[in-house]
Amino acid sequence: MSTTENYWSSTEKEIAQRAFEKARSREINTLIETVRNAASSVSNLDEIWRLHDYLSSKRYEIDGKYDDRESVLIFVFSQLVKEGWLSVEDLEGLNSDKIAKLNALAKM
Amino acid sequence: MSTTENYWSSTEKEIAQRAFEKARSREINTLIETVRNAASSVSNLDEIWRLHDYLSSKRYEIDGKYDDRESVLIFVFSQLVKEGWLSVEDLEGLNSDKIAKLNALAKM
Repeated sequence: MSTTENYWSSTEKEIAQRAFEKARSREINTLIETVRNAASSVSNLDEIWRLHDYLSSKRYEIDGKYDDRESVLIFVFSQLVKEGWLSVEDLEGLNSDKIAKLNALAKM
Repeated sequence: MSTTENYWSSTEKEIAQRAFEKARSREINTLIETVRNAASSVSNLDEIWRLHDYLSSKRYEIDGKYDDRESVLIFVFSQLVKEGWLSVEDLEGLNSDKIAKLNALAKM
């Protein structure tokens, strides 16, 4: 791994922090919308438990995914790009090595 | 335990079955209403996870509570009366020994 992948300048840290919060906020807003829609149409116990299963899975996923340690940030961003919560434009300003690596990871 | 507490006539079985389903249906309808109301006003992740915790607890509770084996039915009914999902009127027609016992249990 090259130095520019490991070293985060203060500008990059700010960009990363903003992108991180943006993705998290997008995913949470989508989750809120999904829960509201699902809940508004539940009409039996099976549907309630399906909603419960969905929330269990999202909780596990979200708790694990938003890890803001610098050492894993490229992997986190590549996952968020892959899932559509971030676009590469949201990460503009990061060093080109970082962008290249996360783009490559996002395509895996 | 006296014989009339253990023996369920066919009429009593029908009354029990009806009461059981009535309580279950009341509790489920209340749960659906509660989930709809809670979900319609969620606006952040903490509230989503509180809804998830609530559903986890209700699932555990409902899965355990509605046990229709004859050997435990008096205890189940006393619990349902205690919680307000059944009234003693819903159990009218059961032998007086059963009613006395479940009333006593419901007051504990």
